[in-house]
Amino acid sequence: MFYKFIQTIDRFRPFLKAKAHCDVPCGIYDPITAQINALTAVRMMDLMNGLAEGDEKSRVDFHNSISRYIAVKEEHAEKAKHEIRVIWGDFIKDAHVEKYPELPALVHKIMQFGSKSRQTADRDAGLAFVDAINQFAEIFWAIKDIKIKRAKAPYAPALEMVYPDL
Amino acid sequence: MFYKFIQTIDRFRPFLKAKAHCDVPCGIYDPITAQINALTAVRMMDLMNGLAEGDEKSRVDFHNSISRYIAVKEEHAEKAKHEIRVIWGDFIKDAHVEKYPELPALVHKIMQFGSKSRQTADRDAGLAFVDAINQFAEIFWAIKDIKIKRAKAPYAPALEMVYPDL
Amino acid sequence: MFYKFIQTIDRFRPFLKAKAHCDVPCGIYDPITAQINALTAVRMMDLMNGLAEGDEKSRVDFHNSISRYIAVKEEHAEKAKHEIRVIWGDFIKDAHVEKYPELPALVHKIMQFGSKSRQTADRDAGLAFVDAINQFAEIFWAIKDIKIKRAKAPYAPALEMVYPDL
Amino acid sequence: MFYKFIQTIDRFRPFLKAKAHCDVPCGIYDPITAQINALTAVRMMDLMNGLAEGDEKSRVDFHNSISRYIAVKEEHAEKAKHEIRVIWGDFIKDAHVEKYPELPALVHKIMQFGSKSRQTADRDAGLAFVDAINQFAEIFWAIKDIKIKRAKAPYAPALEMVYPDL
Amino acid sequence: MFYKFIQTIDRFRPFLKAKAHCDVPCGIYDPITAQINALTAVRMMDLMNGLAEGDEKSRVDFHNSISRYIAVKEEHAEKAKHEIRVIWGDFIKDAHVEKYPELPALVHKIMQFGSKSRQTADRDAGLAFVDAINQFAEIFWAIKDIKIKRAKAPYAPALEMVYPDL
Amino acid sequence: MFYKFIQTIDRFRPFLKAKAHCDVPCGIYDPITAQINALTAVRMMDLMNGLAEGDEKSRVDFHNSISRYIAVKEEHAEKAKHEIRVIWGDFIKDAHVEKYPELPALVHKIMQFGSKSRQTADRDAGLAFVDAINQFAEIFWAIKDIKIKRAKAPYAPALEMVYPDL
Repeated sequence: MFYKFIQTIDRFRPFLKAKAHCDVPCGIYDPITAQINALTAVRMMDLMNGLAEGDEKSRVDFHNSISRYIAVKEEHAEKAKHEIRVIWGDFIKDAHVEKYPELPALVHKIMQFGSKSRQTADRDAGLAFVDAINQFAEIFWAIKDIKIKRAKAPYAPALEMVYPDL
Repeated sequence: MFYKFIQTIDRFRPFLKAKAHCDVPCGIYDPITAQINALTAVRMMDLMNGLAEGDEKSRVDFHNSISRYIAVKEEHAEKAKHEIRVIWGDFIKDAHVEKYPELPALVHKIMQFGSKSRQTADRDAGLAFVDAINQFAEIFWAIKDIKIKRAKAPYAPALEMVYPDL
Repeated sequence: MFYKFIQTIDRFRPFLKAKAHCDVPCGIYDPITAQINALTAVRMMDLMNGLAEGDEKSRVDFHNSISRYIAVKEEHAEKAKHEIRVIWGDFIKDAHVEKYPELPALVHKIMQFGSKSRQTADRDAGLAFVDAINQFAEIFWAIKDIKIKRAKAPYAPALEMVYPDL
Repeated sequence: MFYKFIQTIDRFRPFLKAKAHCDVPCGIYDPITAQINALTAVRMMDLMNGLAEGDEKSRVDFHNSISRYIAVKEEHAEKAKHEIRVIWGDFIKDAHVEKYPELPALVHKIMQFGSKSRQTADRDAGLAFVDAINQFAEIFWAIKDIKIKRAKAPYAPALEMVYPDL
Repeated sequence: MFYKFIQTIDRFRPFLKAKAHCDVPCGIYDPITAQINALTAVRMMDLMNGLAEGDEKSRVDFHNSISRYIAVKEEHAEKAKHEIRVIWGDFIKDAHVEKYPELPALVHKIMQFGSKSRQTADRDAGLAFVDAINQFAEIFWAIKDIKIKRAKAPYAPALEMVYPDL
Repeated sequence: MFYKFIQTIDRFRPFLKAKAHCDVPCGIYDPITAQINALTAVRMMDLMNGLAEGDEKSRVDFHNSISRYIAVKEEHAEKAKHEIRVIWGDFIKDAHVEKYPELPALVHKIMQFGSKSRQTADRDAGLAFVDAINQFAEIFWAIKDIKIKRAKAPYAPALEMVYPDL
């Protein structure tokens, strides 16, 4: 049924391999954008939960705030997923997948945690999203032979993040 | 080094499994959007190559046309990649990956062929992009237990496409 | 008062006619994108009404879900209107309007049903939106001399749709 | 073949009529946005033609400038079309079409001139685009019982525009 | 600590000055776009407050309307800020700031009133936003040596606006 | 002429001050996004200049590459400007401007260097853009009482950047 796929891969091996050795025209890949966006999703969850449990506000103010938090959460969780997709599709080559065979499942999990972070205000889903992206960042910097460090983000929710040790 | 990933997956297995059985709040997934977008990328390649080889036009007209073809190619190839990412991240579950183990590599190839289709006007790259998305569509409809048929698209470049047989 | 308009049309008849016979640089026109987007608007209405009538959820979860359904409904209804406008503005020529004189009113209705589908969760408005776009699709495929068939969409809300019979 | 359309219109007449008398939730409609955007398209044509005929620039500078003019032209012509579509779909009711029967053809022409303005750097197409939108503005302000005046736009290309006489 | 900034400014004075005398490639700058967008934000506040105080509607209808008003308010307040940033960054030169030294603080206030207009439905914040943008418009037209007039906007909320007297 | 502005500022001092002490609902502000975007603009300049001076490529390939570099440069320079505007409008308060009186001129320069980086492929303009944003980052982190360090970016063009020392 999928025999054509094998052919396709064979047919295109030459130029895909070429691309693996020469990643011009590359952009600038940096997982920090995805990391900040995922962190923002958790922050919005915290604001949403704080608002729902907090002192009563006027009906209009409540709606204005919660709608904005949800919209910001949507936008940033989506952006985080998009950024990971770009790095994975444009920077990660077959050779990297061979060396880090957990990559395909990790990227799939990032997409699923990202969707969960959009569909709920469940902080655990948000934490898993950040965590999985941090693991992706760890692999990314390992591929680039740059050491990492762990430090708390300098803004709420101040989760421990993976940074390159420049 | 990646021990935390295993923990993460274990910690979130419950709600991910729950989601697999109950895909509310789902959108409407249909690979045809990605297929049409990839087809459009090939169409733009044909227009680009035709323009470069065709009768001389004024300098301004040439630039206006080629810039627009490139921009349309960019936008549609990107949209095709985005649509596949959404279906893969939101519709495809671990159980599907177990049944169709070629899925992770296929999705990775789609991203790579999509990038190649943006980076060049190489028609073979565009054909591989369409081909890989058609294979994804085939798996998608198989998961939904809907038979497929193959037919030429009713517009240039009239490539053979996978359609659900409704 | 509008005498200038007549002049304008006369002045531009030559190049507009030329365009009617040669639709390069055309994109790929397919009403299926509008049809799927309108269907998604109805799906979101169903989810909204189901949520409001369903079991009580936490305040945050309710808001998160309903905001997302509304936003998805907005986006897809708008996208459906946009797609019809593109086909109508770029593909439909004066000769088609002469042959199908109901077209201008039909397109106007699509815009109005689309707005109604954004302004409410009134399922009848959504159904009329889908219905009018299906009628547009029927004319579109007739112009292209391609037979149509009717079949239920392979996803909720499974409305009867117009498809080309390829 | 299209009998269903008549039914649809009949079925939805009640709420459409209701809407015609009560345009809440209305936005703020003003054709000036479309007019400025169409004017910008003409301005970009002038810059494009000036660049192609002007003193030789470096290859990179030439490409940078012409690509940006084309992209700005695309974006603004599209925005002008979008704005007219919004006013036409949301503000213009059947009663207005009865009073100004030229409206459907005028809106169709605006879409066609807009596309022509995107597909070429033909200044006549741009002028027709601006002209047709000015005529639309004239009808719009007449519907709102607000007198108009004509004046040159206070920026290049300084075409004569229709403004409300406030 | 910031000594490098002085160097930077000195280093780039030549081309910045050149640009001040020759604003090709300029777009078409007109504060009316920002003014209409800010007015729309106030309109949405009025609709939000009216909805919250008005007759009871169904739960779904209430949510659909208030979410849309908030989203429209967000989009238009953001667009107003963006338009001012563009005029300020691309049209306003150092010489203008010397002549109108209140400009930097005024632009900063516009951004803050714009954010306040997004974060609340506080009509006073919206009025201040419109007011500050009208003041910006007044300076803008003064720079271009075009007289202004004040008139009520021809749509709700019908605030007094600054218009060029063409 | 601008007496109303003083009134406006006075009238709104209360809530603006309140906001300065309580920055809920804040997002997560981090200048790194602007820094990476500005760096990307320089990278695109390098690719553009390299392409123009490099070995001859086919006409279509040359256009495809240069158009994409220009579009990426546009998008990222714009994004950098947008990010700085957000931090400046939402995070920077009057008290910060009093402490760092160079801020308004610095932000204005960032906008101008950003426009210059869009209008040309002049690497010096790009360097000034990155430099000014680094200076903004330095002030930003000083306001947050977080020490900075300088290090080369871990990707081409490997310029020296300001990073928080976490």
